[in-house]
Amino acid sequence: MAKSALHLARMSYQPKMPASLQGAVKIIEGKATEAVSDKEEIAAIFPRTYGLPLISFAPGGERTEYPPTNVGVILSGGQAPGGHNVIAGLFDEMKLLNPDSRLFGFLMGPDGLIEHKYRELTAEVIDEYRNTGGFDMIGSGRTKLDKPEQFEAGLEILRELDIKALVIIGGDDSNTNACILAEYYASIDAGIQVIGCPKTIDGDLKNKQIETSFGFDTAAKVYSELIGNIQRDCNSARKYWHFIKLMGRSASHITLECALQTHPNICIVSEEVEANNYYLDDVVTYIAETVVRRSEAGMNFGTVLIPEGLIEFLPAMKRLIKELNEFLSQNDAEFKLIKRSAQRQYIKNKLSPENSRLYDSLPVDVARQLIADRDPHGNVQVSLIATEKLLADMTAQKLAEWAEEGRFQGRFSTLTHFFGYEGRCAMPSNFDANYCYCLGRAASILIAAGKTGYMAAIKNTADPVSEWEAGGVPMTMMMNMERRSGKMKPVIRKALVDMDGEPYRALREMRREWALSTEYVYPGPIQFFGPEHVCDSPTMTLRLEKNDR
Amino acid sequence: MAKSALHLARMSYQPKMPASLQGAVKIIEGKATEAVSDKEEIAAIFPRTYGLPLISFAPGGERTEYPPTNVGVILSGGQAPGGHNVIAGLFDEMKLLNPDSRLFGFLMGPDGLIEHKYRELTAEVIDEYRNTGGFDMIGSGRTKLDKPEQFEAGLEILRELDIKALVIIGGDDSNTNACILAEYYASIDAGIQVIGCPKTIDGDLKNKQIETSFGFDTAAKVYSELIGNIQRDCNSARKYWHFIKLMGRSASHITLECALQTHPNICIVSEEVEANNYYLDDVVTYIAETVVRRSEAGMNFGTVLIPEGLIEFLPAMKRLIKELNEFLSQNDAEFKLIKRSAQRQYIKNKLSPENSRLYDSLPVDVARQLIADRDPHGNVQVSLIATEKLLADMTAQKLAEWAEEGRFQGRFSTLTHFFGYEGRCAMPSNFDANYCYCLGRAASILIAAGKTGYMAAIKNTADPVSEWEAGGVPMTMMMNMERRSGKMKPVIRKALVDMDGEPYRALREMRREWALSTEYVYPGPIQFFGPEHVCDSPTMTLRLEKNDR
Repeated sequence: MAKSALHLARMSYQPKMPASLQGAVKIIEGKATEAVSDKEEIAAIFPRTYGLPLISFAPGGERTEYPPTNVGVILSGGQAPGGHNVIAGLFDEMKLLNPDSRLFGFLMGPDGLIEHKYRELTAEVIDEYRNTGGFDMIGSGRTKLDKPEQFEAGLEILRELDIKALVIIGGDDSNTNACILAEYYASIDAGIQVIGCPKTIDGDLKNKQIETSFGFDTAAKVYSELIGNIQRDCNSARKYWHFIKLMGRSASHITLECALQTHPNICIVSEEVEANNYYLDDVVTYIAETVVRRSEAGMNFGTVLIPEGLIEFLPAMKRLIKELNEFLSQNDAEFKLIKRSAQRQYIKNKLSPENSRLYDSLPVDVARQLIADRDPHGNVQVSLIATEKLLADMTAQKLAEWAEEGRFQGRFSTLTHFFGYEGRCAMPSNFDANYCYCLGRAASILIAAGKTGYMAAIKNTADPVSEWEAGGVPMTMMMNMERRSGKMKPVIRKALVDMDGEPYRALREMRREWALSTEYVYPGPIQFFGPEHVCDSPTMTLRLEKNDR
Repeated sequence: MAKSALHLARMSYQPKMPASLQGAVKIIEGKATEAVSDKEEIAAIFPRTYGLPLISFAPGGERTEYPPTNVGVILSGGQAPGGHNVIAGLFDEMKLLNPDSRLFGFLMGPDGLIEHKYRELTAEVIDEYRNTGGFDMIGSGRTKLDKPEQFEAGLEILRELDIKALVIIGGDDSNTNACILAEYYASIDAGIQVIGCPKTIDGDLKNKQIETSFGFDTAAKVYSELIGNIQRDCNSARKYWHFIKLMGRSASHITLECALQTHPNICIVSEEVEANNYYLDDVVTYIAETVVRRSEAGMNFGTVLIPEGLIEFLPAMKRLIKELNEFLSQNDAEFKLIKRSAQRQYIKNKLSPENSRLYDSLPVDVARQLIADRDPHGNVQVSLIATEKLLADMTAQKLAEWAEEGRFQGRFSTLTHFFGYEGRCAMPSNFDANYCYCLGRAASILIAAGKTGYMAAIKNTADPVSEWEAGGVPMTMMMNMERRSGKMKPVIRKALVDMDGEPYRALREMRREWALSTEYVYPGPIQFFGPEHVCDSPTMTLRLEKNDR
């Protein structure tokens, strides 16, 4: 395979590690842990993996002999920069503990385990992927691993390959299922340990024990590079408002982090929209008012950051979508008879007054897409809504009304962008390269210590790597009960943006100034070789949250 | 202004220069030059700036005393990374020649000259912008500077500020006009020299004398970073075809360069489409056939690079747009009476048979946009057509037909992207930072040598900076006569992709393999501090064209 100059140079980067991951390691067990809530239910569901102690590693243990131990690894869910380094760290520590241990990668996510598709990850394979982005070493997939039949199918291949431990690299759902699997294998004395690793660019797998999920750092930096470039263009041409939507699913962590890195004129935070029970029109009015104020100061240009999940956080939109889903599923046959050009009017007449008004206020493209592009279950596909276009169009509409009333004299031209796939598989930043490698090493040490139902954990990550603390967290400790598809289920609690947290407070403090001045910050591309403060700095979110801890 | 860590670190970068730009410089004049074609007409139009000699600089001249000389500078047209460094190089050399010389920047492009809006560029201003992207130091604009009234209005402020030379940084059109201005000021003995500098990310301002325009290197590298990231995602998820449109106006240089950097499965080159008289359906068929072949090999994923200007190069689309423009301008009143939902059918009935068939085959969004979003002159806006979406939709349509015929058994899901504003104002790569700084220094030396009607030029740019050769090229030398708005005019000849050039030949040689294998290359982000072969390499285009020279 042809490789770029940077790719080749980057392959020889040796990730940094704290002392507690170098050489022989002492395992220190803390007190028994509890779930974040619903303790009794969770204890009952996880009798063998509940209440385990926190584990931390300290340097200076004695190097003892470990038997050779075969391990399996799965990448689950969306890509995130650094996944290959988790596997490299896992491999290197395994080989250090016993060179006869072997590592197997299951292909294309959980399906690989269930369908017995795998490849052995030898040193040759691993070396090809050190410090690279993407999950292409073994692929990933979104199949949910949560049924006993799947666990049993997996067990066959695990036994065949003499695998004693499985490492599942994934987000909150995948790790919840990793814990269910750990519990299941413990319950049947299968002799298979299961260890999780916190992955997701969305940044929503974090809590008191897990400071950040890997990939968030790199993805946010790639998006911030692009936002900075666009802001420099915006401030040079001085004629466009750029509406920029950012990946990140429900939570607004990515958008908030990018705002802290780039100082845009407007940053929408879904969690704030929901907390204040805002209507779509409130958001549009907020943007339009800022456009007017900047225009009055001679600036007919600006930037707006929009989190991918916004629509789901608008209570009124949620109600509209609910009624649309119900109506369309009940009246599918009749709806199919309506001529395309008459569909919008038909729907408008069928909805309740409030939802009808909201539906009628949507731009024609969005209104059409809501009823046309439904998923296989007939549901409206919220994620397909081009929110950046929707907000740009609705702001233009409002400003046109205001212009007629004499409230707006400026120009308003828009450009829209959506960044997501540009960052999920970027080469991991030094932070993610180091963090992931350490997670992999930690996972290996947890396996050697005979643990199951744990997530590998690195703390103190806002400090230099030498200060990082490695260990493991019982996955049940992060769980609570939530309703999923009508049933109460144990799940690792997803972290949305905390309205009392430092990152959001920092935004709130500065955004008024950002709106009216043009104090853009230009982060530029991720650097790997320069001064440490340029190359190794963690996200603003991590640095600010340090004050919360 | 808050600055990012990289921004701060980058401000102290000292651009590299060849020996011929360091210290005292000897001016070497070559033979008299001729226009690339239409010599007599051009000689007649430019009696004072035609036939001037090529100029090259050599080290080792004697440092003589120069009188203080005030200079004005204008940024014209679209942003390109490195513009600030041209100005910094200009400034540093001016101050070296005489510390009492002063530099004035005209604001927001040619308008600043005409409307007498300017700022003095002192060391303090310049230092704030060294090695940064964007044109925000003085802004840019697209006003064409081509009328004697404008020249006279400019002369007033030039005289008021005692400016003896004007540097115009722009693309082919802006430099053509710079030469007309040089000729005009010479003809009235205004005592104002005019020097041009080759700017444009599109890469279409190049010829035997000018090897590349600045900004092309950085923009192509930013887009290649993103394409590489998407390809890694594509190859990890293995479920999407990504259709990626790239900025670059008419010429496909950017798309071709990005393809050479990233090895996508498909790369469309507009110039090839035109040379072969392809129809839109030919392009779609070519893509669809590749999708089928990859699918048969188990790969329902891939990448397609599409140049922004494609539509204009499809002869049949050109004919359709011509007829649409003519019909709509002649029947505007009647058209306005047609109901929106009936417009498409109306237009279809009015067009000639061939154009009607083509119009009917376009996806509904594109068909609607062609007749709805016209410019102030009533013309169809080709640049607004989402070609990436058009090709994705039409390929899906064709594959659906083939699936019915049993010719396609795979899945085909698409994602679309358009990259442009992400790269125009990026921090200049080391190449662009060096190249621009050298162009600025060269412009200053040309001014000191009393030259006018010249473009600053740096040659040998595929080699290390120490081997670069600096000098000046008479702008008339790059001109020919072309029809513009119905009249024959002298213009600097635009460079499209050369079907016999090395870059295109390299693509043609490798693309069959790229189509069926998945040999993506991942360039990663631009690096500033690492090994020289990672940080300082010029584009593939420059390296390959070296063989043509």
